[in-house]
Amino acid sequence: MTKISGFSKLTKAEKIDWVCKHYLQGQDEAKSVVEQYWNSNEKLQKLHDEFAENTISNYYLPFGLAPNFIIDDKVYCIPMAIEESSVVAAASKAAKFWGNKGGFKTQVIGTTKVGQVHFSCQSEYHQLKEVFEKHKSQFFEDANEITKNMERRGGGIKNIELVNKTDQLEHYYQLHCTFETVDAMGANFINSCLEQFGKTLEKIAHDLNVEVIMCILSNYVPECLVRAEVSCPIQDLAAKAEDAKNFARRFKQAVDIANIEPYRAVTHNKGIMNGIDAVVLATGNDFRAVEAGVHAYAAKDGQYKSLTHVDIENNLFKFWIEVPIAVGTVGGLTSLHPLVKVALSILGNPSAEQLMRIIAVAGLAQNFGAVNSLVTDGIQKGHMKMHLLNILNQFEATNNEKAQAIEYFKTHSATHNAVVDFINRIRS
Amino acid sequence: MTKISGFSKLTKAEKIDWVCKHYLQGQDEAKSVVEQYWNSNEKLQKLHDEFAENTISNYYLPFGLAPNFIIDDKVYCIPMAIEESSVVAAASKAAKFWGNKGGFKTQVIGTTKVGQVHFSCQSEYHQLKEVFEKHKSQFFEDANEITKNMERRGGGIKNIELVNKTDQLEHYYQLHCTFETVDAMGANFINSCLEQFGKTLEKIAHDLNVEVIMCILSNYVPECLVRAEVSCPIQDLAAKAEDAKNFARRFKQAVDIANIEPYRAVTHNKGIMNGIDAVVLATGNDFRAVEAGVHAYAAKDGQYKSLTHVDIENNLFKFWIEVPIAVGTVGGLTSLHPLVKVALSILGNPSAEQLMRIIAVAGLAQNFGAVNSLVTDGIQKGHMKMHLLNILNQFEATNNEKAQAIEYFKTHSATHNAVVDFINRIRS
Repeated sequence: MTKISGFSKLTKAEKIDWVCKHYLQGQDEAKSVVEQYWNSNEKLQKLHDEFAENTISNYYLPFGLAPNFIIDDKVYCIPMAIEESSVVAAASKAAKFWGNKGGFKTQVIGTTKVGQVHFSCQSEYHQLKEVFEKHKSQFFEDANEITKNMERRGGGIKNIELVNKTDQLEHYYQLHCTFETVDAMGANFINSCLEQFGKTLEKIAHDLNVEVIMCILSNYVPECLVRAEVSCPIQDLAAKAEDAKNFARRFKQAVDIANIEPYRAVTHNKGIMNGIDAVVLATGNDFRAVEAGVHAYAAKDGQYKSLTHVDIENNLFKFWIEVPIAVGTVGGLTSLHPLVKVALSILGNPSAEQLMRIIAVAGLAQNFGAVNSLVTDGIQKGHMKMHLLNILNQFEATNNEKAQAIEYFKTHSATHNAVVDFINRIRS
Repeated sequence: MTKISGFSKLTKAEKIDWVCKHYLQGQDEAKSVVEQYWNSNEKLQKLHDEFAENTISNYYLPFGLAPNFIIDDKVYCIPMAIEESSVVAAASKAAKFWGNKGGFKTQVIGTTKVGQVHFSCQSEYHQLKEVFEKHKSQFFEDANEITKNMERRGGGIKNIELVNKTDQLEHYYQLHCTFETVDAMGANFINSCLEQFGKTLEKIAHDLNVEVIMCILSNYVPECLVRAEVSCPIQDLAAKAEDAKNFARRFKQAVDIANIEPYRAVTHNKGIMNGIDAVVLATGNDFRAVEAGVHAYAAKDGQYKSLTHVDIENNLFKFWIEVPIAVGTVGGLTSLHPLVKVALSILGNPSAEQLMRIIAVAGLAQNFGAVNSLVTDGIQKGHMKMHLLNILNQFEATNNEKAQAIEYFKTHSATHNAVVDFINRIRS
């Protein structure tokens, strides 16, 4: 455990040797694990190494498929990258369930993205406002070199607004800017525009003691919003009328609880994000950006709430999600990562709007699966089956041992320790 | 684009053939890309395939190292799994910067985890309360088989509380339960306990018209909380006293802005999560769980706010984060995923509490890096350099072409289109 200077300049092999020597007591085993994950195609490996810095290997997320999604009358097979068991299975099951009930219907409510120039001004607001209004067109003109390509594709700057925030922080103002970035996520475009706006602001307001603090896009995008919905007559929810009625009632109750109880809402929405992030990742988008925007949206009314809702009226069961999703299908990793390209091909090379719809559906399907399990068998039954298999694999259980374990844990709680105890028992 | 029955029962090869045939016009190229990502070690590949369902390949996240982190006087090299450029570089830079200023100091404020049994009861609250208090010990007794191993390790059920929520939803009550799960994340343990509590509740309150709706852990863990801090005299922040003072002032202003402006706070915290998730992933933990808990915590006061804070007093610059992190270093993927094992070894096989500290530090370091860039050069300068290299690689630029491009984009905005135009220009 030691410090090092110039680590980033070492070769990959040198980095691995250094960490093995100083942090792993020279373990050759760790080194071979790290190398075992390298791709045999050197060019491909180099590409992945260069996505980030100080890369020594590849961290695997299972890349799977959830087929049978009917979205706006088209059948999709959705690629998902996720390490958590049961997510892809639950998505597939929900897709099938709703597939013969009309499928998922979606609506893109808005595609507006946001960025802000944060600055302080020591002069009076009315002076600042006057200068801003007089020279507003200058912002658009000065950003022309950056925006011309985006405009060709149908996007660009939508609006620039001066906001007075001095009631909350002394001398603090914003340029609150909105953008349309079409099929790009738009982070680079927006940040480039904003940094130019900052320069323009300093130029036009040079007499007003303006100091730009920072220029940065916002991942809070309540107007880049998509809705997905499923619905069916209550009696279609189960084979027996009584079961269907019960299920609808319990399901609604579970979602209503998530709407009023933050401790439940957080986990309810976490399950939604299992579906959303899996598609965000598989399509080369930034899940931290989506996560931040979604959870802030869930908290927008002052209390953290459910992102999904249930309505039962005239015997019709309606279940929907409304969620802000800012993603791209061009730029970034989308054209660089070979597996992302395959994922986008499987989805029919969607526009960003189409991808918003697909992602919202994945979230809604996931939530349907989770709440369905919770109000019927409980979450542990399905989860434990996968969990059990993982532990058995860890102990390299034979098929015979696996069969015995599966039988035993039908009636016993499959905690990690209980499984370990069981394996030790049958082996001794 | 077609539906399919029994997809999960197909072999991996059959799944790939099916998706190629029906969604990719039989493209052999896509098939070879999917297969190119398989690990040559069949046993290892099978292990990864079984982490999730319908797995057809491995999605790579770059696995990198950020050295030189001094945390509570010990030197760490932090493994990070992240696809976004600049994150590992920024972490390493922040580690170095604070390394010769005393490093990071951390404090685990709490480790309490939460789960709830959500139920309805048609009887009077006082009746329910009476029964609950009379039979409270029954919950602990009935869960004994599940808890005994956890108790041996120093954990278990901390408390079970009856909560009356009927003012918000008719007939709705909870058992609000707290747990100590030591080095396990504890999801399976908590859910197993809760499902048992549900059964016990139905047993003890069988005369009171109780209906259990669902039993489930909460990812909202405001009492599983860790703090990380850095501090130094203002003059140590830069070589020149004037620069140092300016930097401290601008940095504090940027963090204060994130504290009052949700549009900024969301992205400010998103940057923190870049660091947090990278370590959460590399150590085999569930980033959706951490994300949900963290963002809900950021919104706990009714407005979404910054997770980091700056204080300047008596010429001392102090920068800290307080964040709920529920993670494990045993169970789950931690002992199954070979690269996760290496990551945990590099970190010295930490306890869950130690990992909480390391993760909080990664978040704070990331935020320091981001705010530092924002209030000095702007975010685009460093970001664009990486971005530019990615695009150049995509076009398989020669070293000579790369050198030309780097020179040109020192003074031009490196939007994706501008780079593409530039490459086309120099090649034609």
